[in-house]
Amino acid sequence: YIADRHLAQADCNAILKALQPIFQEQGMTETVHNWEDHGYLVTYIKKNGSFANLRIHPHGLVLVDLQSYNDHMKGREETDQLLNKLEERMKELFHGSIKRVKRLPTILRGGIIDRYWPTADGRLVEYDIDEVVYDEDSPYQNIKILHSKQFGNILILSGDVNLAESDLAYTRAIMGSGKEDYTGKEVLILGGGDGGILYEIVKLKPKMVTMVIFILYAKEGRMFDYVINDLTAVPISTSPEEDSTWEFLRLILDLSMKVLKQDGKYFTQGNCINLTDALTLYEEQLSRLYCPVEFSKEIVCVPSYMELWVFYTIWKKQMEV
Amino acid sequence: YIADRHLAQADCNAILKALQPIFQEQGMTETVHNWEDHGYLVTYIKKNGSFANLRIHPHGLVLVDLQSYNDHMKGREETDQLLNKLEERMKELFHGSIKRVKRLPTILRGGIIDRYWPTADGRLVEYDIDEVVYDEDSPYQNIKILHSKQFGNILILSGDVNLAESDLAYTRAIMGSGKEDYTGKEVLILGGGDGGILYEIVKLKPKMVTMVIFILYAKEGRMFDYVINDLTAVPISTSPEEDSTWEFLRLILDLSMKVLKQDGKYFTQGNCINLTDALTLYEEQLSRLYCPVEFSKEIVCVPSYMELWVFYTIWKKQMEV
Repeated sequence: YIADRHLAQADCNAILKALQPIFQEQGMTETVHNWEDHGYLVTYIKKNGSFANLRIHPHGLVLVDLQSYNDHMKGREETDQLLNKLEERMKELFHGSIKRVKRLPTILRGGIIDRYWPTADGRLVEYDIDEVVYDEDSPYQNIKILHSKQFGNILILSGDVNLAESDLAYTRAIMGSGKEDYTGKEVLILGGGDGGILYEIVKLKPKMVTMVIFILYAKEGRMFDYVINDLTAVPISTSPEEDSTWEFLRLILDLSMKVLKQDGKYFTQGNCINLTDALTLYEEQLSRLYCPVEFSKEIVCVPSYMELWVFYTIWKKQMEV
Repeated sequence: YIADRHLAQADCNAILKALQPIFQEQGMTETVHNWEDHGYLVTYIKKNGSFANLRIHPHGLVLVDLQSYNDHMKGREETDQLLNKLEERMKELFHGSIKRVKRLPTILRGGIIDRYWPTADGRLVEYDIDEVVYDEDSPYQNIKILHSKQFGNILILSGDVNLAESDLAYTRAIMGSGKEDYTGKEVLILGGGDGGILYEIVKLKPKMVTMVIFILYAKEGRMFDYVINDLTAVPISTSPEEDSTWEFLRLILDLSMKVLKQDGKYFTQGNCINLTDALTLYEEQLSRLYCPVEFSKEIVCVPSYMELWVFYTIWKKQMEV
């Protein structure tokens, strides 16, 4: 709740006095802390283990946080009723001079199902997860498969949303967005362990698809029409000289260009469109490869990511004749 | 933080004793509440107006909430350091028997920019809003235009995300997903006040487009090849007999069918794919119109919605010859 004016000590006190009875009606016991310059923090504690924080800031922001264990439906209704009463009382007190009232959905913590998987650019997003299908630690990473009502099964590796059953848009984009003819072509897939690219590409009758989940492919002199790098997103860290992920990334790019035919194409994911620094840095790395390359990029909405994603097409610069 | 076992009173106490010094190092003063059966709530208060709640549940869930005003970068670093120390201490105490550690992104409340616009199915999602472009109350609703880094300007009507500059997918879907030939056709748009449909449809050389933002069109006997209803999503409430929105919806459907040519098509949005009850109810309403109709639906990813959206195509049942 936000009032549109700076509150005097007397106003802060009036808010406290007005809201107090509502908490007390719930059988909550009160502990008041009053800062000299920073308003009030009032803690209300209930016998069943739930509690509320009422924070009154002198510049006019009033925050109410309720926390309880086992938030079954009845608990939610009670919570809504309590918040309704508080809102009503505040509106009475300020006669419509309240600038904004905002109620956020309940945050569920500590359950078997974790619904919060922040985006690459660090935003809090809640998924409609209804089942933990798989959750194990491999020697390399934590592997989770969580079921989302709308996105289907989602593969989450060490906390990163990798791919969901809804995300054909990802696979389509990293294969060149339907503009390529794979018939009779030699294709190298780097990574792609979820099998999504392989599943789609074999439908398009390539001559041969080689998939290497770890980078093991020997220098046997084979050349490819397409290299699809599905190993990892562009690193978020922007210290290319210090971070070994960037070194790995350049190594892969150089190796890939060596096995790419002169008129071949290299496809890869970038990262979230908002991570402009990391993407710019990636593009700078492209000018540091052993051979000159050119690139284009495309912005794609991958449903389960909840953020727009950048994909790159890279090719060897053609010699002028 | 979640331990994988039920904690005895002694364990709860050991956690408190282990974490106490970390808060006290920050110059925070402590208030301890100990329930008989529900563990501890410890409140730590700092002189600058910030505070922390440490909630130790006897079944093994430990929650730490930090709240502070003016979360500038320095404040965030301090917070991270504090959380790192708490996490370390907990890991020492439980020797690797901690089942899960989860840290959520900071929730920003009370600022000029509100980043939280829950989905139609009630999930908490944070948008990358960086500017309030417009915010006014009309006689009918609150109208906001907020700028998102990735989605561009977003139109938000009374708290509902309506359409963003990134959302051509919405306009495409409600126009029949590119499968219709609008050349020389009579088109009626209901609603569509943001202008998105009109902007796209005039490119396709229709004979005439009539757009009615309010339902005012007289019974002048004109018939349409296409009716595009962009007025409102399917109501979330599932009390069709009581809720006037459902009545309005049936009225619009009946009126629309009356002006739709026998081989015409009616396009409209449904709602979030997860609101299955509301969507089923909508489909039931379709069998209650004055004339028999058939329908198909399509699921579309509209970037700024952060949830999959259902669109309907409805047409008059053709008489058997």
